[in-house]
Amino acid sequence: MGVTVAIDCMGGDHGPSVTVPAARAFLRNHPEAKVILVGRQDALDQAVAAIGNGFGDRLSVRAASEVVEMDDPPAIAMRTKKDSSMRVAVDLVKAGTAQAAVSAGNTGALMAISRFVLKTLDGIDRPAIATILPTRKGQVYVLDLGANVDCEPEHLLQFGIMGAMLVSAVEHVDRPSVGLLNIGEEAIKGNDVVKRAGELLRGSGLNFYGNVEGDDIYKGTTDVVVCDGFVGNVALKTSEGLAQMLAAFLKEEFSRSLLTKAMAVVAMPALKRFKSRVDHRRYNGAALVGLRGVVVKSHGSADVYAFEQAIHRAAEAASNRLVERISERMAAMGRAA
Amino acid sequence: MGVTVAIDCMGGDHGPSVTVPAARAFLRNHPEAKVILVGRQDALDQAVAAIGNGFGDRLSVRAASEVVEMDDPPAIAMRTKKDSSMRVAVDLVKAGTAQAAVSAGNTGALMAISRFVLKTLDGIDRPAIATILPTRKGQVYVLDLGANVDCEPEHLLQFGIMGAMLVSAVEHVDRPSVGLLNIGEEAIKGNDVVKRAGELLRGSGLNFYGNVEGDDIYKGTTDVVVCDGFVGNVALKTSEGLAQMLAAFLKEEFSRSLLTKAMAVVAMPALKRFKSRVDHRRYNGAALVGLRGVVVKSHGSADVYAFEQAIHRAAEAASNRLVERISERMAAMGRAA
Repeated sequence: MGVTVAIDCMGGDHGPSVTVPAARAFLRNHPEAKVILVGRQDALDQAVAAIGNGFGDRLSVRAASEVVEMDDPPAIAMRTKKDSSMRVAVDLVKAGTAQAAVSAGNTGALMAISRFVLKTLDGIDRPAIATILPTRKGQVYVLDLGANVDCEPEHLLQFGIMGAMLVSAVEHVDRPSVGLLNIGEEAIKGNDVVKRAGELLRGSGLNFYGNVEGDDIYKGTTDVVVCDGFVGNVALKTSEGLAQMLAAFLKEEFSRSLLTKAMAVVAMPALKRFKSRVDHRRYNGAALVGLRGVVVKSHGSADVYAFEQAIHRAAEAASNRLVERISERMAAMGRAA
Repeated sequence: MGVTVAIDCMGGDHGPSVTVPAARAFLRNHPEAKVILVGRQDALDQAVAAIGNGFGDRLSVRAASEVVEMDDPPAIAMRTKKDSSMRVAVDLVKAGTAQAAVSAGNTGALMAISRFVLKTLDGIDRPAIATILPTRKGQVYVLDLGANVDCEPEHLLQFGIMGAMLVSAVEHVDRPSVGLLNIGEEAIKGNDVVKRAGELLRGSGLNFYGNVEGDDIYKGTTDVVVCDGFVGNVALKTSEGLAQMLAAFLKEEFSRSLLTKAMAVVAMPALKRFKSRVDHRRYNGAALVGLRGVVVKSHGSADVYAFEQAIHRAAEAASNRLVERISERMAAMGRAA
């Protein structure tokens, strides 16, 4: 994997204290890869000194004087902070110096900057955010996760194409199955946009499974689930809330008394394996797809392990030609402008 | 609670073998309540004989010759099966013989029949389905759950009113807080319908909290969460899928070997308490609100305990004047026609 990843080291809740050690872990696990750490010179010098740079030219630092804050409006971040670590990381992809960019910063700003700097691919109206969730069978890619809240059927078709190409690039699945998120047959009235999107997907040449419901996401019915950004965001956040509640309840029940605490100690190996199976850190790294370049968004609260996964996903997408795959597919469907 | 509940005994996966014992449990726990069991005479005679009717005139049987099947289209069920157990149960509410109806049958058919027979309240455009979910603080009522997939801002306002009146009737909360389901501040673009609904709710005189996100459902941020039926259905089904996956993983980890099975035995009391806290059967019984009568939908797979909860909810809503509360509120807001 001879890929170079530009890392916005200032984004996220923890900044360089997480992003720089994650870059080190990534370099150790990918001996042919390179990283460019982007951020404030002093902060990066200190963080690199702390990890003890032994990677030679595989690790370089690129100074950027500004930082996009979590509450910066996307338009402001894009127009006024032209030397932000986020902007410079994306600029490096545009210039071809890096093949992918990773940031744990403000999602809206990252999307606005990426779209402005890299532009969308021919035939793609709007980029989307694709995340990975664990399923009973393995994992599923869900898009869109919030970039697009009012979608036309054509947009959902494009999400299907981008999602399928993402899975074939990153997961090496030949013809990923694509499901369209809808509500049950008991629905008194269907949703017109989704119905028409289903027709477009059926005629797309993709491996279209048909409609899926919310529970199919975690059943692993398909490799890709397509939905508009409002619905996708609600599904993701609702899942996070439920998982947190269940984890809190489980912990409470095992902390109730000395006896239950002893039970927890006995059961720890099984509880730990359970926790590791559904560890959201393993699935960190949402791809911004539909752009002329690879950009991956990490969760803001990511720790070193989680951020490393996001860097890994970015490198994997770039070295497996994600952008070209989407572009070729659009052209083959006669959809590229 | 001197209320009479009409029970569609033929609906759901199990029919009279669940619905009739659930009616018995309900009568035992509510000494002033009555039930009318509706369904095929032979099936009910047999089921009532099996429970040994010792309730005198508190339990009566009303014969209905037809059954709405789970795959009957709502319009067909409504127009052609005029002597179905579902239809007769709702007719009994219309006639004033019963104050509430409960069914575990086809949701679409139950909504269509209820709307046709009972009609909506003045000022309510569309009835909604409100379900209860557990939260870290207690429980939350979420509506709509699938009856309305393309909503205008005015509909979301009406859901807010109906949800608040439902919680004040059934949970005895004075001014329930109402949240409007939206996506994060990071959203690149808001959803226009939701934005305008927020303005209407803000000026409604309800205890409006403002926007909530998916994770707020399980955090218990508000007493009521309002959303359109498509989003609500996806949130509910996604939650079901995630909960099932986590339960399966937990079970797998504890069944892995003799050692982990022994751990499970030791940890059983804590695991059981955990399971009971999130037992979806406790929350069974979704109210169809906005109608001139109380109708409650049970999950089709409900067992005796779960179906009893649905009967209990129906009786509670009727004896606490749910319909009148919504009606009075609409009139007070100058919204009743």
